[in-house]
Amino acid sequence: MFFAEITLKAQFYDIDPMDVVWHGNYARFLEQARCELLDKIGYNYHQMKESGYAWPIVDMRIKYVRPIRFGQEFTVKATIVAFENGLKIDYRLRDRTSGEVLTKARTFQVPVKIETGELCIESPAALVDRLKAPA
Amino acid sequence: MFFAEITLKAQFYDIDPMDVVWHGNYARFLEQARCELLDKIGYNYHQMKESGYAWPIVDMRIKYVRPIRFGQEFTVKATIVAFENGLKIDYRLRDRTSGEVLTKARTFQVPVKIETGELCIESPAALVDRLKAPA
Amino acid sequence: MFFAEITLKAQFYDIDPMDVVWHGNYARFLEQARCELLDKIGYNYHQMKESGYAWPIVDMRIKYVRPIRFGQEFTVKATIVAFENGLKIDYRLRDRTSGEVLTKARTFQVPVKIETGELCIESPAALVDRLKAPA
Amino acid sequence: MFFAEITLKAQFYDIDPMDVVWHGNYARFLEQARCELLDKIGYNYHQMKESGYAWPIVDMRIKYVRPIRFGQEFTVKATIVAFENGLKIDYRLRDRTSGEVLTKARTFQVPVKIETGELCIESPAALVDRLKAPA
Repeated sequence: MFFAEITLKAQFYDIDPMDVVWHGNYARFLEQARCELLDKIGYNYHQMKESGYAWPIVDMRIKYVRPIRFGQEFTVKATIVAFENGLKIDYRLRDRTSGEVLTKARTFQVPVKIETGELCIESPAALVDRLKAPA
Repeated sequence: MFFAEITLKAQFYDIDPMDVVWHGNYARFLEQARCELLDKIGYNYHQMKESGYAWPIVDMRIKYVRPIRFGQEFTVKATIVAFENGLKIDYRLRDRTSGEVLTKARTFQVPVKIETGELCIESPAALVDRLKAPA
Repeated sequence: MFFAEITLKAQFYDIDPMDVVWHGNYARFLEQARCELLDKIGYNYHQMKESGYAWPIVDMRIKYVRPIRFGQEFTVKATIVAFENGLKIDYRLRDRTSGEVLTKARTFQVPVKIETGELCIESPAALVDRLKAPA
Repeated sequence: MFFAEITLKAQFYDIDPMDVVWHGNYARFLEQARCELLDKIGYNYHQMKESGYAWPIVDMRIKYVRPIRFGQEFTVKATIVAFENGLKIDYRLRDRTSGEVLTKARTFQVPVKIETGELCIESPAALVDRLKAPA
């Protein structure tokens, strides 16, 4: 299983008038963990472009279990759960100290040929080869 | 059916390096339409607070059907689809000119008593009375 | 004098825990007015690119005179104050109802040749010709 | 001299269509360094509130010297340069590897009594006592 984990701290600019992190800001947290994961497998934004593919997110779902408050430290763990027909990633946000689950999320992104704009059903070798365990 | 519709234009600050609106920015578009809708029924942020309830979003799902590009104008229609046990709102983003669907989304928010932090299963009268048709 | 004016409404996502628009969000308001102005003179992002120049902002100054609150409507007027050696734009934010000045700001952006990355001292004809009054 | 320094990495969501960090995002970088500094002197958001004062930013100036690109690591150093009549903070952003200056900025914030909304000319003891060196 391929995964990456980062630690973040809720900033003042993350907080809304109800004194919790505004729900729309979580997309940033997910992306930061996802990029860490893509760096780890050597297939981040630049390598994607070089391989001739963009990987737009076509589905995002976020379940907010507990609020996050100013100054609170939390971890974001991103795990690849499927990659053969697009890239599906699961996320868990947990309080850094207590380990309590704060948020569950999932994103699904698909390969699109940059030159033609064509959506591909199967993930290109550029991704799959990096994720398949050697025989 | 209670709904509201707004028209927006993709700004430069919305666009990412792939020349499309960054997926995380859609939460702003949804919120702007939702607030328009809540204004229409007279139960926006201030009235929520006065009624003693916060309404955090506990679930958000966005399906990105077609990309939105710099300067593109689009409509966001928000429709209440359930309100007795929390507030469920559906969203459709469409190209302003062609009417093509660009994005489908749904948010679910629940009433929380501000004083006690208690999560409520049933929506308070403050919301329900505004939405129930008179006998 | 070339100018453009837009009307905006402070959204929930603009507001910080002190119940005022977070100071960092004003850069979005300025940009939206600036793009309206650049559209008006026919030299917005796409035309800039076509003319071979990028126009990065190299200086931004914002003076926050009065806070802006949730739901408050305000105008943003952007005026070109210099354009021969870069593009200097002045901004005034005013309450839509009272006309009171809320914010004063200025941005300065310079032409950079996209192909070479070279910074230019003089603004290219692509901009100047659009702004010079006919003889 | 009171200062704090943090290290950041430009994220995908920071980048604009010109492949550089969008100029409006720097307000987040400055705030993150400022909060680190305020934490260090024990007078961050919560202590401000407890002391009865809000500290809105009334002036922000940013000079963009060199662009920041996707994945680039940089430091943000925030230094208090005046505090007796408001809080003036200077910022330097530098490339983490080369040490090259990327951005210079300054913010000025003033004490406002939360109860009355009154703007104060002199900084309250709650701040000054934390910054004055012991005799």
